[in-house]
This record gives sequence, structure tokens and C-alpha cells, in this order.
Amino acid sequence: MNIKISGTGSYIPNVITKNADFQLHEFKNLDGSKFPHSNEETIQKFKDITGIEERRYLDDTLNASDIAFLAAQKAIEAADIDIETLDYIIVATNYGDVKKGSIQSDTVPSMATRVKYHLRIKNPKCVCYDVLFGCPGWIEGMIQAQAFIKCGMAKKCLVIGSESLSRVVDKHDRDCMIFSDGAGAAILEASEDGGGILAHESATYSYNEANYIYFGKSNSQDSDPNVRYIKMNGRKIYEFALINVPKAMKSCLEKSGKSIKDLKKVFIHQANEKMDEAILKRFYKLFGEKVPDGVMPMTIQELGNSSVATVPTLLDLVINKQIDNQELQKGDIIMLASVGAGMNINAIVYEY
Amino acid sequence: MNIKISGTGSYIPNVITKNADFQLHEFKNLDGSKFPHSNEETIQKFKDITGIEERRYLDDTLNASDIAFLAAQKAIEAADIDIETLDYIIVATNYGDVKKGSIQSDTVPSMATRVKYHLRIKNPKCVCYDVLFGCPGWIEGMIQAQAFIKCGMAKKCLVIGSESLSRVVDKHDRDCMIFSDGAGAAILEASEDGGGILAHESATYSYNEANYIYFGKSNSQDSDPNVRYIKMNGRKIYEFALINVPKAMKSCLEKSGKSIKDLKKVFIHQANEKMDEAILKRFYKLFGEKVPDGVMPMTIQELGNSSVATVPTLLDLVINKQIDNQELQKGDIIMLASVGAGMNINAIVYEY
Repeated sequence: MNIKISGTGSYIPNVITKNADFQLHEFKNLDGSKFPHSNEETIQKFKDITGIEERRYLDDTLNASDIAFLAAQKAIEAADIDIETLDYIIVATNYGDVKKGSIQSDTVPSMATRVKYHLRIKNPKCVCYDVLFGCPGWIEGMIQAQAFIKCGMAKKCLVIGSESLSRVVDKHDRDCMIFSDGAGAAILEASEDGGGILAHESATYSYNEANYIYFGKSNSQDSDPNVRYIKMNGRKIYEFALINVPKAMKSCLEKSGKSIKDLKKVFIHQANEKMDEAILKRFYKLFGEKVPDGVMPMTIQELGNSSVATVPTLLDLVINKQIDNQELQKGDIIMLASVGAGMNINAIVYEY
Repeated sequence: MNIKISGTGSYIPNVITKNADFQLHEFKNLDGSKFPHSNEETIQKFKDITGIEERRYLDDTLNASDIAFLAAQKAIEAADIDIETLDYIIVATNYGDVKKGSIQSDTVPSMATRVKYHLRIKNPKCVCYDVLFGCPGWIEGMIQAQAFIKCGMAKKCLVIGSESLSRVVDKHDRDCMIFSDGAGAAILEASEDGGGILAHESATYSYNEANYIYFGKSNSQDSDPNVRYIKMNGRKIYEFALINVPKAMKSCLEKSGKSIKDLKKVFIHQANEKMDEAILKRFYKLFGEKVPDGVMPMTIQELGNSSVATVPTLLDLVINKQIDNQELQKGDIIMLASVGAGMNINAIVYEY
């Protein structure tokens, strides 16, 4: 038995926020001090490092579970399955539904239950839960679904990543420009076809790294200190990722029995363009190779970092030929890889 | 290979809040109207139905992840395992860490990462995630851990349920008297011994039931309408549970190949004493049997409903002979069962 993706879907929010839209923000350092240089310089430097030119935000009326549902609908349509045959709906998220204007995460019922409700699925044996695993949550959900299929607990699983980071950013923190909203989904199912998931790798580094990404007060001392926002220690994350992500990717590729030369695409979490390029360079260097042209599809320039949604969205866009010069052929060996809060790292090697 | 619990632990918070402590609350109906009868009557009726006389709340300085760690420490000690051999830490929760005085859930990093951090585990291959599945989350975490062990992805898993519902209750809602705080944990591992998990059952009813438990505004119209609290439709939950929980328990017992007469104990989610008694009565009636004396250990009188923590705490207390006239013998067939937000229902039949 092989375990394959039979359909993907994504939802890209409508509201486009360009870098220039941050021109009037009052950016501050963690200690509350003002930036020594102009916003124009700050934004230019930000763009040079992250590659991000614009990002997408949800309409005010939508929540993360709504777009999880919209992405799920497309994945179900692509997989052409009867919704009543789904055994699991797994939603990876970190903040859940945060209504516009609210600072509370609405976590009960789970996002997965909300998606099932919107899909109008009746079968109670379709089990719904949310998984919190930082940005790598969607890949982890796929690894969990794979386990359920492998041990006979499931045949078809819907795995979604959905997040609305625009609702938890600190407008006084330069990092707010990184984060965006989005949702991506896939149907994973037992299949008689060849290929599918060949290997996976998963890890949590918490001994020193647990709080590299955290919930903290605004950089502005004029803000309510009791209201907290997504915060990260960018420098430490960069160093951590550069050491550990290539190693995890290498380990996963070796487990799959495939060679680096077999690898056609790497779908990596879109956190920061320079970081992703550096990770890929190190990964190939571990095999004494150079990074082949076009091996890493990228959407960060237009979509920013939508956390759990980046990898499934990217995969969906490439499968549907929505990214120039990027496509997949049957039999292609690909890798999905992610890193994020936890600090968690994971990867999957997959034969398309 | 069998999959067995090798150790359990729990943390029962220090702050005891008695029913009389609600005497000065201004209870209101959902529509904001005042209760027609006195608080004394309200509290008496509440006690008659739920059985709850007192409940435990966290000290102001502690959070759900702190007590998850304290329960985990005891489970690890009881299992006598090397912490560096743990493959997974799974924390079931619904609201995560909610600091005293805050209305925000602090969900990043995951509670599981926080537990691993406090345990000072170094091994990055110990994978940490949180699962959101309503009150049945801890049992669902056990079912997931079982899947990982079955398919060779893990050998030893730490599964914790931890919640601080006292931080999300509406003091104007009579139901606030139901909820409490707590944490329970177990180590689940592959074993050469006989017994262990014999069968499980899991379901999500969302077609009509998704919002029976939800996040809503205060019953008091003087409260900030943007601040939301745990809310439930008690009557609908009662009816739903009475129909569906006994059926799920029966299905699970049948899958296990054991007879109703083999069943020595039922550890059921402590939501409401009258409801739990009615569920058990119906369950036994499905087999044409009467409920045997002492088959259902209960702590709701003193501990209230601590969500994901009730079942592992109850199990831990019975294993450690902390409940009068309750104990387990090697070979005993027991059932764990739960129902809660989602609406989710699950059960495990286990040979001790």
C-alpha cells in the first residue's frame, strides 16, 4: 500500500498589503527605542533579506477556519472523493480563529470541527482535531495522517494548514511585515498506485530554542503590556535553521533511499527568502552538490509567510501550474520541509 | 506487541473553591435576565444535578503548561523511564496557557514544547505537539500515540491533558461552577507484557452539534461584549451524550472482544454526575445488564470538570489507591470514555 496525495487546494486572501503600506508605521526595537534610520531604509533592508514585496490579509469578515474550509473544498474537488468517506480532518494552526478586532483565539470547537460543519459532512466517524506544531504543523499533520493510514485506522484524510497571522502582529515590530494569512489543504489516501510518501523526519528542539518564537508584548511602551503578539528572535532562528534544517532534510532523503540527483523540487516553508536559499545551499553542499536552477519554487515575494499555509499553498500552486516555469511530472521525487515555533523541523520525501 | 500504560501522574491544584463561594455571584440567563430564584436555590440545584461540591483552581502564578509538566514528572517517575527515550510528548488542551488576568491564550510555542523544556529533555527526536479535541483530547492523544507505536514511528509516548478552565469562565453564567483546573499524564509504550489497549473508538458529531460548546460573550450585558468565555448548551449536550456515548462505548467493547461482564471499571469524563450515571445505566442496558456497584470511580464532587484532565487524573488516583474502595488488579478490563466540545466522543478498552 502506498500513501498518496490525491488532491490539493489553497485559499489566497484578497487583501494585498504592499511594503509601501508600512511607510507610516512607528517601528521600534524590543526595548521600546526608535529605529535610528528611516522607514524607507527599514523596508528596503527588510525586502532585501526576506524577499517579501507584498503579503495577503484576510477580509475582515473571514476567519482562519473559513478559509480552511475554502481550501478544503478545492482539495476535495481535485481528489474527486465522496466527502462522507473522509476518516479524518486534521487542521494545523497556531492561533486558531482570531476575529478581526479581537485579541482572543477562539479555539473551541476545533477548527477541524468547523471545517467539517461547513463541508456538511454527516458521518460521525470522520474524526476532527487541530494540531499545534508551529509553522511545520501542516507537514506534521500529513505525517500523523500517514500513521493513521499505515496502521489501518484511516483510508482518507483531509489535512489543512490555516492561519491568520495578520490578527496577531505587533504593528510596532518590523517583523510584522513578514507575516500573512492563508490556507492550504491536501487529501492523503491509501493508494494502489506507485509512489507517495517515501520517508519523513520530524523533530522538536526545545532545550535552548523553545522560546525563539513566542507571544510577547508590543515593542511600543505606549501599548497595553497585557496584550501580546507573535514575536521572534530572528537572528537565533536564522542560525538555528541553517544548522539543523539541512541536516533533517539530508536524513529524510537518505531514509527514502533516493539520491540528491533524483530530487526534482523542494517545497520549503516560506519564512525568509535569504534563509531558504541558504538552507538549500547547505543541504546540497552536504552531498557535495550545487543547488539546481528552479528546484525551489517560491511565492514569498507576493504571499509573505503564512505559517502552516505556506507549504500546502506552494504545492497546490505548482500542481496547478500557477507559478511560472514550475510544474510536476508523475514520478518526480520532491521534498516538503519546514521549520518554525517549537522549534520544530520536519520533512517528507514524496514520489509524485 | 502490546501497547501499555507504564506510568501515570496527575496534578491537583491547591486552591479549593466551594459552592458557597459562588453565593455572591450575580447569575444571569443567556439573554441577560436575572435568575428568578435565590443563589442558594441555584447552587443547591446545581449540586443535585452535577454532584459538584467544590472544585480546584490553579494558583495565580501557574499556567496549564506548568501543571502539565508537574503531572508529566510523576508519570515519568512511575514508569521509571529515561526521559531521553521519549519519542513523543502530546498535550491535549483546549485553551492552552491563559495567564491569570489575561484573556489571551498563549499557544506558541505549544504546551508540549514547554513541557519538554521544563523536563530538560535534550533529544530532538522527541516530537512535541498539542491536540485540540475538546474534553476527550487526552484519550484522543492516547489513540494517536497508539497509532505511532503500532506503525513503528514511536516506542514511548508521554500523553498529557491539561487545562485551566477557571481562566475562561463567565462568572455571570451558572455553568462557571462546573469548570475547574487540572492535569493528568500517562506514559504509553510498546510492551512485551500481555494486555494494554484492546480497542478504541473515536467520533466527531458536527452536523448539528458543532456549537453545543462554544466561545461566547458574558451573560451579563454590562460586560464587554468582545470578551468571550466558555459557554455550553447544557440541555442539548445532555440529550446528545445520553444517545451517543453509550453506543460508542458498546461499539468499543465489542471491538475489544470482551464481554460486559469482564468490565471492571469505567473511567468516564467527569462532566456531570447525573449525566455520567445516566450514560452508564444506558450503556449497561444495551447489554441487558444493571450497573454494578463501584464500577464508575468519581471525583467530580471534589474536583469538578477539568476537561481533558478528568480521565487521566481519575485513572492516576485509582491506580495509586487515592479513592476509597477503588483499585485496579493486573488483568482487569477497564474502559476510558469521554465526550465534549466538537462534539467529540471516544473510548478505549484496556487490559490493565
